[in-house]
Amino acid sequence: MKPVAVRNIERADGVTIDHLGALGVATVHEAQGRSGLLKPYVRPIHPRAQAAGSAVTILAQPGDNWMVHVAVEFCRPGDVLVLACTADNTDGMFGDLLATSAKARGVRGLVTDTGVRDVRALEDMGFPVWARAVSARGTVKSTLGCVNVPVVCAGQLVHPGDVVVADDDGVVVVARSTAPRVLAAAREREAGEADKREKLAAGVLGLDIYGMRSKLEAAGLVYVDSASELSDQD
Amino acid sequence: MKPVAVRNIERADGVTIDHLGALGVATVHEAQGRSGLLKPYVRPIHPRAQAAGSAVTILAQPGDNWMVHVAVEFCRPGDVLVLACTADNTDGMFGDLLATSAKARGVRGLVTDTGVRDVRALEDMGFPVWARAVSARGTVKSTLGCVNVPVVCAGQLVHPGDVVVADDDGVVVVARSTAPRVLAAAREREAGEADKREKLAAGVLGLDIYGMRSKLEAAGLVYVDSASELSDQD
Amino acid sequence: MKPVAVRNIERADGVTIDHLGALGVATVHEAQGRSGLLKPYVRPIHPRAQAAGSAVTILAQPGDNWMVHVAVEFCRPGDVLVLACTADNTDGMFGDLLATSAKARGVRGLVTDTGVRDVRALEDMGFPVWARAVSARGTVKSTLGCVNVPVVCAGQLVHPGDVVVADDDGVVVVARSTAPRVLAAAREREAGEADKREKLAAGVLGLDIYGMRSKLEAAGLVYVDSASELSDQD
Amino acid sequence: MKPVAVRNIERADGVTIDHLGALGVATVHEAQGRSGLLKPYVRPIHPRAQAAGSAVTILAQPGDNWMVHVAVEFCRPGDVLVLACTADNTDGMFGDLLATSAKARGVRGLVTDTGVRDVRALEDMGFPVWARAVSARGTVKSTLGCVNVPVVCAGQLVHPGDVVVADDDGVVVVARSTAPRVLAAAREREAGEADKREKLAAGVLGLDIYGMRSKLEAAGLVYVDSASELSDQD
Amino acid sequence: MKPVAVRNIERADGVTIDHLGALGVATVHEAQGRSGLLKPYVRPIHPRAQAAGSAVTILAQPGDNWMVHVAVEFCRPGDVLVLACTADNTDGMFGDLLATSAKARGVRGLVTDTGVRDVRALEDMGFPVWARAVSARGTVKSTLGCVNVPVVCAGQLVHPGDVVVADDDGVVVVARSTAPRVLAAAREREAGEADKREKLAAGVLGLDIYGMRSKLEAAGLVYVDSASELSDQD
Amino acid sequence: MKPVAVRNIERADGVTIDHLGALGVATVHEAQGRSGLLKPYVRPIHPRAQAAGSAVTILAQPGDNWMVHVAVEFCRPGDVLVLACTADNTDGMFGDLLATSAKARGVRGLVTDTGVRDVRALEDMGFPVWARAVSARGTVKSTLGCVNVPVVCAGQLVHPGDVVVADDDGVVVVARSTAPRVLAAAREREAGEADKREKLAAGVLGLDIYGMRSKLEAAGLVYVDSASELSDQD
Repeated sequence: MKPVAVRNIERADGVTIDHLGALGVATVHEAQGRSGLLKPYVRPIHPRAQAAGSAVTILAQPGDNWMVHVAVEFCRPGDVLVLACTADNTDGMFGDLLATSAKARGVRGLVTDTGVRDVRALEDMGFPVWARAVSARGTVKSTLGCVNVPVVCAGQLVHPGDVVVADDDGVVVVARSTAPRVLAAAREREAGEADKREKLAAGVLGLDIYGMRSKLEAAGLVYVDSASELSDQD
Repeated sequence: MKPVAVRNIERADGVTIDHLGALGVATVHEAQGRSGLLKPYVRPIHPRAQAAGSAVTILAQPGDNWMVHVAVEFCRPGDVLVLACTADNTDGMFGDLLATSAKARGVRGLVTDTGVRDVRALEDMGFPVWARAVSARGTVKSTLGCVNVPVVCAGQLVHPGDVVVADDDGVVVVARSTAPRVLAAAREREAGEADKREKLAAGVLGLDIYGMRSKLEAAGLVYVDSASELSDQD
Repeated sequence: MKPVAVRNIERADGVTIDHLGALGVATVHEAQGRSGLLKPYVRPIHPRAQAAGSAVTILAQPGDNWMVHVAVEFCRPGDVLVLACTADNTDGMFGDLLATSAKARGVRGLVTDTGVRDVRALEDMGFPVWARAVSARGTVKSTLGCVNVPVVCAGQLVHPGDVVVADDDGVVVVARSTAPRVLAAAREREAGEADKREKLAAGVLGLDIYGMRSKLEAAGLVYVDSASELSDQD
Repeated sequence: MKPVAVRNIERADGVTIDHLGALGVATVHEAQGRSGLLKPYVRPIHPRAQAAGSAVTILAQPGDNWMVHVAVEFCRPGDVLVLACTADNTDGMFGDLLATSAKARGVRGLVTDTGVRDVRALEDMGFPVWARAVSARGTVKSTLGCVNVPVVCAGQLVHPGDVVVADDDGVVVVARSTAPRVLAAAREREAGEADKREKLAAGVLGLDIYGMRSKLEAAGLVYVDSASELSDQD
Repeated sequence: MKPVAVRNIERADGVTIDHLGALGVATVHEAQGRSGLLKPYVRPIHPRAQAAGSAVTILAQPGDNWMVHVAVEFCRPGDVLVLACTADNTDGMFGDLLATSAKARGVRGLVTDTGVRDVRALEDMGFPVWARAVSARGTVKSTLGCVNVPVVCAGQLVHPGDVVVADDDGVVVVARSTAPRVLAAAREREAGEADKREKLAAGVLGLDIYGMRSKLEAAGLVYVDSASELSDQD
Repeated sequence: MKPVAVRNIERADGVTIDHLGALGVATVHEAQGRSGLLKPYVRPIHPRAQAAGSAVTILAQPGDNWMVHVAVEFCRPGDVLVLACTADNTDGMFGDLLATSAKARGVRGLVTDTGVRDVRALEDMGFPVWARAVSARGTVKSTLGCVNVPVVCAGQLVHPGDVVVADDDGVVVVARSTAPRVLAAAREREAGEADKREKLAAGVLGLDIYGMRSKLEAAGLVYVDSASELSDQD
């Protein structure tokens, strides 16, 4: 790894980002073919958080948040910081001072494969964060990493400028080039879901809405009326 | 494992269920001799959730929620879905559509050894869920499992029709046949606790209420007035 | 380990404790040179909890909370219970009855390397707890441990009478003898942070406030204007 | 849980046990429909271990191995001890003294959801063990559990007298009543595998042996000759 | 994710691969700037295993090894299979039959973010495997994935045709284009290490060989002759 | 934490160390009252390893092994290095070069709460290591820590000069001052075990040797002849 910081990146279209954000993580994830999701150990540090933006990526060393400072300079309104680490680490890489600085530049949130701290202050200032841990353990500023290179964050490859959508269900990444297509698919899915939701609320079964009965039979599911029909209990 | 779905099961008495639910997980768990508890990694996805019902059990394959649809058809008002999986899996097996369907049939909640998604919507619709993870990762519908057979969910054997009690402290299962006896014991315990709580709040020590002093002495506990009396500090 | 219970311990100064508590875990941790932090798996069981006090330490056996009862007798107003265990254990070692008793004696909270239960009741009575797990699983009272000896709790050595500060960021321990010095350093740090926060909010970069640019250059960070300047993508 | 010890249990047929043992865990697991497997965190403490026997089950408390002593009295030649615990625990519940005793009674091995110790001595005496951990931490003998009741061990329900098969791949349990049928299925599977192994070794592809090509096409797999044919890189 | 299988990929130079393999994981990892390493939970299933080859990548669904069969057809002598999964999964995705097939095509080993089985047979046939788990749990063949697309395996991005080096220390990936440069750097490092090893064996200190004394002093390390010089023991 | 390196420490008596080492971890742990054990996740990297020595302690930063070099200078024949870290970290802090240097100074082994690398070379040179992980990931030398101060390593407090005993069962620490007393107790225990082992091998039950029958009865254990005597199956 050569330590490098890339100043300028191409960003996804702001309107597309906002629409994807409104649709939410689960819908966007489905719409792009069940891909792009970060591992579920990355959780929002406060309930009912939501954010969507264009990724500014950081690759940091364990226990060292130097590169976050480098990254903030490159941020523009509508960005989301994505912080990966070269090793598993839960130290508090980001806190209220960095959040103040990021917010001043219009950053919409942070997604990190590390820990964060000052979580009460972060909630009070309305800066949403998705992290693997909360830890007050501070960090040094002594070893270089990278900014705005492709990173693997929580098991997911993220390119600078990718669309990041995050909410209570987790975090999903959409490639900039495919974002318009994913948005179209997500809207279609959302429309179909509204109809299904209404039917399900009225008591129609998913078995019937999705036409599953014949497939279950073909796959060999055996229905019995009661447990007494089962000859043995394996 | 033969894929089988059992339509009809015997359910526990509704009044007994409701009373056990009102007593709460910790009390019920104690009252049945400290057994029946699911492993503590299964947590409510929203604070202050409560549910009690008769178990409809599901055994699903990892990443496949087909059998949940099969199970919903069998549900009646007062049931709780218990979803086990043949392998450790955190995928989002259950979301707002299935919850809408389950709620329409009177289901009171879900306990699952997998992940769930749409957790904000689940909270908004008042459908309580206890899960091992939150994950937006969707599932396929291609491999069969079972419905209403005995399952091991989060380390605990659950039979269809068992009483499931769930709250902020976790999830406990009571066998249908012993539920009345456990309820009686739980009520007795609850009554005793109220009295103890009052004494403890007044400053009486547990050491005295429970008569522990002589037992501690018999077991060999050494009281010293200060650390300086300890000859070495092992 | 000889089972011993030390009745009287020296406690830290109450005013110092309260001031450290007001400064919070992250600031205190930094002020004492980034030491004293418990592992981040110990989390508050309710959001926005805060406590600071003088440690009464307990070393218990897995699944056995007998020594907690012994410890409560020694507690005075302003204390915080610190419960360590001789093996990894998530059982519910502490619940509403013990909390009622502890609260009656003026205890400000509990920090434990085990599980706790009755968490809803604990929240309702305003008794803050930091724990590794929530579990309804009850405990026996049959094997002795120690009270008010040095313990390792969540990876951190804690002496009886140490200052314990706990909030949403975790738990930090300050030795009684160094508490005044740490308080002075924490106040100084806090003062400096207010100034920095203001500048950062106004858009000044951390890179400039902390004078990082020359150090980054000396360390060899390469800035490029765009990804196209990178010859290969390692 | 009422503390109870059941002296006499029905055991599976010894010849069936030995044949299942010779076929190995993976084959037996497949032959009974991919069920009965303990979670993979239970591992042999020495490489190339093998054992098969009739289960004598134990339910112990964390950090307490009293019931193992009770169980050994009931053991007969050909048995395998299955040790479950009421809570997650890694303490060394079993060591060379208990192994000496068990071996003297003809016990063929131990499967445990806890830790063990004296592992070098266990290897030297040829007593195979499958465990979740190795730990020198000793245990007390103060709280009762059960012997020869159904237990959940490493996520798997085990009845006394079930067939336990264990090797480098893990541990599988076969119900006594279905053991002959599973053996027949396992032998059939083994026979088919020998033929397949020969073909695969000769370079015939699984795609052709299993007739997968048409199914892959039906499922929609797209073959391309090179990556350059992929229009986008999602 | 569109299910796609890419037949032909560019492979790294065989001689370069073999030389990198001979240098080993730790040296190669250092030589390419401490990057390219898979997370350390991926471990060899047998001690003293070694392999180096050109990556054929697989992206599979949890509990489904269908795509491994697809991948084997594309393998050539000198390849190493790299198996990633769309979700965390420990099922036994690969066993002796697939290994027989892969070996027949000249595959040198498997690196997988899932489980494997038949590990005794794998050792006996000399087919090295690096895996996250051993599990006898079998898999279905019902949901598509991808072959020879970039995958994230154990936290590391792997492109088809990358050089994979694996030994007792873990697994490292080197991009095909940079492999010659990394090889040159690794050789240089290796040469320097031999000299250092000799000096260290003769009792010369690393402090002197690496010239660390002045840097330690500059950084502020305080040497004291004995603990009694420390005024307090924070 | 002030960065400090203590040159001279008091060491335990060499003969006592060797005798404790010969008795082994499990026996020593029992003899000192079941205390002093490191958490069981610290495992030998090679089977059948053994070491006993006087602790030279190191407190390092995550991903930084600078202080190990400082520590080696202070080592004498018969020492064991004990490496703790200020945060959870699995990086390869120690490899064949450091082992060569340590071995040249007579160091008998390493116990570490971090990762190590070059494990094949370490085995070949006969340098035993107990670690939490194996990882090729290298470390920087940029942030100070401490040498020969009390550290918490894998949950256990270790003072410089403590006796460290390590084998296949794990690692136990004995305070220098109590080492002779622990040795005496361990020998006594060992003597008693030989007698018990002989009886157990002859078929005498632990129930009788330890006189457990009356205690089991007093505690309330119910013996039944067969499962049919159990009225319900709770």
